[in-house]
Amino acid sequence: MMQSVDYIIHADYVLPMDERLTVIKDGAIAVKGTQILEVGTSEGIFRKYASRAIISGRENVVFPGLINTHTHAAMVYFRGIADDLPLREWLENHVWPAENRWLSPGFISDAVELACLEMLKGGVTTYNDMYFYEDAAAEATKKVGMRAVLGAGILDFPTKSASTADEYFANAESFIKDWKGDNLITPCIAPHALYTCGPETLKRARHVADTYDVPIHIHLSETRWEVEEIRKRYSMMPVEYLDSLGFLDERVLAAHCVWLTDPEIKILAQKGVGVSHCIESNLKLSSGIAPVVSMLKAGVKVTFGTDGAASNNDLNILSEMSTAAKLHKAYSEDPTALDAKTALLMATRWGAEVLGLGRATGSIEEGRAADLVMANLNKPHLTPMYNIYSHIVYSMRPSDVEMVMVDGRVVVNDGKLTTADESEILYKAKEWCKKISTSPFFPQGPY
Amino acid sequence: MMQSVDYIIHADYVLPMDERLTVIKDGAIAVKGTQILEVGTSEGIFRKYASRAIISGRENVVFPGLINTHTHAAMVYFRGIADDLPLREWLENHVWPAENRWLSPGFISDAVELACLEMLKGGVTTYNDMYFYEDAAAEATKKVGMRAVLGAGILDFPTKSASTADEYFANAESFIKDWKGDNLITPCIAPHALYTCGPETLKRARHVADTYDVPIHIHLSETRWEVEEIRKRYSMMPVEYLDSLGFLDERVLAAHCVWLTDPEIKILAQKGVGVSHCIESNLKLSSGIAPVVSMLKAGVKVTFGTDGAASNNDLNILSEMSTAAKLHKAYSEDPTALDAKTALLMATRWGAEVLGLGRATGSIEEGRAADLVMANLNKPHLTPMYNIYSHIVYSMRPSDVEMVMVDGRVVVNDGKLTTADESEILYKAKEWCKKISTSPFFPQGPY
Repeated sequence: MMQSVDYIIHADYVLPMDERLTVIKDGAIAVKGTQILEVGTSEGIFRKYASRAIISGRENVVFPGLINTHTHAAMVYFRGIADDLPLREWLENHVWPAENRWLSPGFISDAVELACLEMLKGGVTTYNDMYFYEDAAAEATKKVGMRAVLGAGILDFPTKSASTADEYFANAESFIKDWKGDNLITPCIAPHALYTCGPETLKRARHVADTYDVPIHIHLSETRWEVEEIRKRYSMMPVEYLDSLGFLDERVLAAHCVWLTDPEIKILAQKGVGVSHCIESNLKLSSGIAPVVSMLKAGVKVTFGTDGAASNNDLNILSEMSTAAKLHKAYSEDPTALDAKTALLMATRWGAEVLGLGRATGSIEEGRAADLVMANLNKPHLTPMYNIYSHIVYSMRPSDVEMVMVDGRVVVNDGKLTTADESEILYKAKEWCKKISTSPFFPQGPY
Repeated sequence: MMQSVDYIIHADYVLPMDERLTVIKDGAIAVKGTQILEVGTSEGIFRKYASRAIISGRENVVFPGLINTHTHAAMVYFRGIADDLPLREWLENHVWPAENRWLSPGFISDAVELACLEMLKGGVTTYNDMYFYEDAAAEATKKVGMRAVLGAGILDFPTKSASTADEYFANAESFIKDWKGDNLITPCIAPHALYTCGPETLKRARHVADTYDVPIHIHLSETRWEVEEIRKRYSMMPVEYLDSLGFLDERVLAAHCVWLTDPEIKILAQKGVGVSHCIESNLKLSSGIAPVVSMLKAGVKVTFGTDGAASNNDLNILSEMSTAAKLHKAYSEDPTALDAKTALLMATRWGAEVLGLGRATGSIEEGRAADLVMANLNKPHLTPMYNIYSHIVYSMRPSDVEMVMVDGRVVVNDGKLTTADESEILYKAKEWCKKISTSPFFPQGPY
């Protein structure tokens, strides 16, 4: 008796990214509702399951949806607004004034749609965000059908979204209560950074995380300036300081981690802190190069983040993998460092794990949500094919992604978004761009 | 009276990459035969010229065809054959045995078609190659309609293509004589490197270049090992040694240039030697990071090369620009280094100049060959648009390229090759791959 399912997904190669890093040639996946029922050879799956729909193709590969563990999604509307500038000029004369002038729930909602569109088309199924008006971000993300961990940034100074610590925390707690338990949106608490949040704010954020059992998202040791600043204020290195506050454990996702000492790496490993490596942003802003190989050796789970599109300038995890896997070979003077399998693991299963979503997504295994990507291998830049991991990490591009499923729903089909109108999303972005670039607040004339 | 032309190309933005780095909004280009007649505003061009065909579109940009100044095109057939390995193991146990087993004019011809297909679809209109059986490469390149500078590698030891110095040079001279004056193919002389060619071979290559007035293509200071080797043999640094032989001038394109001293950079600048920076290959093979910012400051014309696809693993100059422009900001600790305009200049006009093709291609100006790219800006990852240079360098992907013209001929239209059958090129590559990966010479089992 055949078991009935909603989808059978059939591919030349299935990479479940399970513990054994199996590669299934001529594989298939049975999906029922939001979940993966079984993954195996196509022969076995087709013998056991009857499906209302079969998603197939020739010369393709299926792997888990990619996880972007650090971004500010709505910043896509500031993509390319100010490039090739010193960090402080970029922030103080361009990014902050633009944010101060333009951010609103309406802006966030429209901008997040564009960010989700870009990410989904590039095979990213989950993102971890820290920005403002996350309620609008959550609605937009859910509408488009993407998975996200969202937290509004908490700072010790007023921004458009809140004026006092109490207001920031009240907003954060009400956001957590509203969204906790949602199938796609995981609320989190997001104290911005050590130089923008004093110890009381950090401890309070930690307390909220424990109270509501939600993840913590924080920037950590992105720039040399920031590390010096923390050392001046607290006479400790940033990780040691956080540890002294009782802040660190598996609940914490620390973005950047560029300027770490060996003892700090050891603490991150011991406490099980997850790291989001944002190589393209760190390079472009000249922040520095994170000691990824040392972190991996110490047992730290390093994952990939794009950071915001104002400093990247895209939300492309395929490219983050490729850049990082190549760069750390040169940086560690070891051509075997950060091999292709490890890079894909960091971008999938580990990404889910560091966000507290390890049981929900990140691999193609029984009981996980059906979050997966099908890519076409019949492309000049993917021909010939000797090694599937190498192709995904070093050669694959977003345009190779043909089908994306999130939580059992096909959200990209034949390379096109199914859940919203792409041209409307682009149209809204252009209207916002017109307003932004013709405003007296615009810091430069567009070409 | 309107002047009749073959094409008017009309775009929202035209970047001629001329001396003034003009940006023409609502621009157009008149093309007659192989040449650009005029570039200007669309109003001016449409008033003056009548065209049999108009190439247009909404929300697009036209810029000069990108120049790949260092590759081994046929190595696309070894894409991903061996990754994440130490350099010597990669070369000695994988690449050289594969080359020794498989290279032939037939292999080169089929593989070069694939390489040209990949490059053209990514907006590359000219490549500079050093490999074997360049006659087959020239025929294939010409058939597909791409521009190339080609030179068969000359070494002091036998390979499949030649056994003695005399044979290498006889082959090279006959190749030069056969192709000199061709509209698309420029023959060159390509002594492989300082550690594989003794001083007599280098001087002889230099003499051939002068005799026939052709460019010289050589690998230079790619690895630390190689620099040490040259110092041991000749008690000089590699650039000083080449200079002592009278080898260096504007005719020379030196690939890699990773391990240079400041005095060597000064010599390269004084002699007008062109450099091909192969950042992705240098990172992936852990060769090191070239001092590009210092070279640019010293006045060296640095351009971009992909190297072969066995060490990259694609032939994507858009990505080389992006990686280099970001990386050198972090490496030089200066976020203003290698800005987007400079990166595009290096990938276009300078690329042509260092190959001795500065009067033929590299910019969209009157009298230049019509080698140009039209890309679609109406994409999620290119929206919104504040700065066109930034978009091309930091966000554009090969899949955004819609039309490519080489020497006045449309070779890519609507993203598809017009000059050969794409599926046949891919089919041939897969047949070769089957042979290679099932042979006892194959160094690893494919997944």
